[in-house]
Amino acid sequence: MRAVDIIARKRDGYSLTKEEIDFFVQGFTRGDIPDYQASAWLMAIFLRGMDARETIDLTMAMARSGEMLDLSGIAPVVVDKHSTGGVGDKTTLIVGPMVAATGLPVGKMSGRGLGFSGGTLDKLEAIPGFRVGLTKDEFLRQLKHVGLVVAGQSADLAPADGKLYALRDVTATIESLPLIASSIMSKKIAAGAHAIVLDVKVGRGAFMKTEQDAVALAQTMVAIGQGVNRKVAAVIADMDQPLGNTVGNALEVQEAIETLRGNGPSDLVEHCLTVASQMLILAGKAPEASDARQQLRATLQEGQALSKFCAMIEAQGGDAAVVDEPDRLPHAPLVEKVVAPRTGYIASIDAMEFGLTAVDLGAGRQKKGDLIDPAVGIVLHAKVGDLVMQGQPLLTIHAANVIQLDTARARLLAAYSWSNKPVQPPPHIRRIVDR
Amino acid sequence: MRAVDIIARKRDGYSLTKEEIDFFVQGFTRGDIPDYQASAWLMAIFLRGMDARETIDLTMAMARSGEMLDLSGIAPVVVDKHSTGGVGDKTTLIVGPMVAATGLPVGKMSGRGLGFSGGTLDKLEAIPGFRVGLTKDEFLRQLKHVGLVVAGQSADLAPADGKLYALRDVTATIESLPLIASSIMSKKIAAGAHAIVLDVKVGRGAFMKTEQDAVALAQTMVAIGQGVNRKVAAVIADMDQPLGNTVGNALEVQEAIETLRGNGPSDLVEHCLTVASQMLILAGKAPEASDARQQLRATLQEGQALSKFCAMIEAQGGDAAVVDEPDRLPHAPLVEKVVAPRTGYIASIDAMEFGLTAVDLGAGRQKKGDLIDPAVGIVLHAKVGDLVMQGQPLLTIHAANVIQLDTARARLLAAYSWSNKPVQPPPHIRRIVDR
Repeated sequence: MRAVDIIARKRDGYSLTKEEIDFFVQGFTRGDIPDYQASAWLMAIFLRGMDARETIDLTMAMARSGEMLDLSGIAPVVVDKHSTGGVGDKTTLIVGPMVAATGLPVGKMSGRGLGFSGGTLDKLEAIPGFRVGLTKDEFLRQLKHVGLVVAGQSADLAPADGKLYALRDVTATIESLPLIASSIMSKKIAAGAHAIVLDVKVGRGAFMKTEQDAVALAQTMVAIGQGVNRKVAAVIADMDQPLGNTVGNALEVQEAIETLRGNGPSDLVEHCLTVASQMLILAGKAPEASDARQQLRATLQEGQALSKFCAMIEAQGGDAAVVDEPDRLPHAPLVEKVVAPRTGYIASIDAMEFGLTAVDLGAGRQKKGDLIDPAVGIVLHAKVGDLVMQGQPLLTIHAANVIQLDTARARLLAAYSWSNKPVQPPPHIRRIVDR
Repeated sequence: MRAVDIIARKRDGYSLTKEEIDFFVQGFTRGDIPDYQASAWLMAIFLRGMDARETIDLTMAMARSGEMLDLSGIAPVVVDKHSTGGVGDKTTLIVGPMVAATGLPVGKMSGRGLGFSGGTLDKLEAIPGFRVGLTKDEFLRQLKHVGLVVAGQSADLAPADGKLYALRDVTATIESLPLIASSIMSKKIAAGAHAIVLDVKVGRGAFMKTEQDAVALAQTMVAIGQGVNRKVAAVIADMDQPLGNTVGNALEVQEAIETLRGNGPSDLVEHCLTVASQMLILAGKAPEASDARQQLRATLQEGQALSKFCAMIEAQGGDAAVVDEPDRLPHAPLVEKVVAPRTGYIASIDAMEFGLTAVDLGAGRQKKGDLIDPAVGIVLHAKVGDLVMQGQPLLTIHAANVIQLDTARARLLAAYSWSNKPVQPPPHIRRIVDR
């Protein structure tokens, strides 16, 4: 078998066999197949596509390219979640503790933010002392004893995916359904997930701009799951405006704590209950959504979710006192309330502009390896559909210096559109895809 | 400008601007754009195509990536020819001397054989002492004083094309019309050609398998020529059976000499007269084909073509006595006549099988850098349409050892198909494309 022939077959639109896909992925992982052949192959896949069977074979080839964790000793059904990324997306910080509090262990390997999209590890590191770099043994021990752990990738999971992703990033081959779906699923399967809830954001502040694209991705992932005996469900949710009321790491931790206390903003609460419900259903902990939501609401009302969050912080060396004393979280030197420039109903808030402005403030990275400032960010005092009077507070900016503050203010104000008539906010949850 | 954005635009089917194409080709030539981005770009071009303007811009970007020869001091119109490659294709050895003998200087940079397709440099090196590695000054001096020179690439011509071609070879991006056409044209333009006759072979022993593909390539090249003020004409010729009666380096030199003496086989003579006529027409040395053919036939009948060939051999250090004493050319130790296994008309002779068998005998290369044996090869005693009696000589094999001889005999006999009824040989020249 020769790499060039496999490239040619995909170029000509044929389905590749499992053997061809394994040969290519294994050869590339070992370094026998060079980057320049892999990138031609990726472009051929991008333009010619892959059928369901090929996508499954690619997923498993990448999953098996490194370590495969087996968590069945810890829980009979291991449920993982994955967000496609967005602005103000602190879902894991809330869903993790809630689900763990129902008795279902949650061990999640998360990532860092890049570009407009935030990352769970960056948010957790806003908590003084919090350690995301666990060894595999530490990860497994905490999962067993605390029932909740969120850390960086602590095993050599799906190295083929890591290598291919780096190449896709610089060869314009990111936005391909089979490549995106197999990338996500390979890491989750290698991390030991038996069931996966996909949190697919759609809109201006998401990678998927249309509901159609989001549903297609969800369906591709569900099909992969069916092919490899994993359960997959997807929540398609709005990301036209930021999720919840905060963007920025420490600010989002604070909002997550408020939400775990039962005082979260309605879109965020609804989002987290929906994602967490799907996790309980896939794990067999609840027969249907209404039952799942009841269990989950109880963890908020009775404080178990917040306790679980504290237990995780302590287990990972963090200062759990932040839960009761938010002042212990990092603070930005400049905090400025920005008032509404007019009276009206908010018709839209461009989530992408909020994400990019947060990066400019220092909350995110332009490129890998950039340092971030955990304290800076934005608080929204009104969301789409709200009536705001001129001069009323619209948002608060937490900045490191005046130049950044001025730039952010102008940019954020331009990210709103206004209406004189009442605006019906769009439904936050668009759809559930589970087959 | 970023390489990844240019890849994305071609991936999405847009026409690239001249600036984008220049940026990519220059960046790649300098090494700023890595192979893995170039190969993704090539695959996107392969699958999305390039329009006429893009192809012209790509051609000129590659031509300008290195030295640009200016031969206008030597001849007012410099005419070059290029064959797309075939089996038994010794056209340059005959056309070069004929055209030079009419007074039109011919300075040609040729290549080596690879795979089933032979190379002019390999054939010339069968002449004892012949030197193909000339410096640029030697090349120009000989062109001026002898009027005929055939050598390897003696200047840094179109290095971008060389680098891109090496990448295409291993990334399944060879067979793309805009990439093939711009590759050929960029080298010819860099080598100083004002006019180019393209000798496009079509059939089993050619890269182009159908007349439709051959015509499309020819038309693409003619369009490039129109765009950059060069004249281009293409001869579309049969390569279903080998060209002429010999395959193998020394054997082909001998056949070229016989042809220059006026004793060539009819298909080869017709082929060379047609290609050479187009060169005279493009250079303005003849108003039309009939006049051109008359001039060219005279160079054969009156011996000037053969003299020119001798003069070139001498100028390049070769033993010109081979012209009168063919025994001075290398000889294979084993020479065996193979007789016809049956009586019948020859319906077809698979040129590809002849080409590959010649490689197995040692006349060509499986991969770059392989050593070749100038003496070995095949002589055909009958061609398509000929009636042959059982037991009459069909072909002669020149081999280095018995094992290769036995393998070649079996393989070559299987490359014929026979008919009991008369077979009309297909016309050798299929078409002339000049606009």
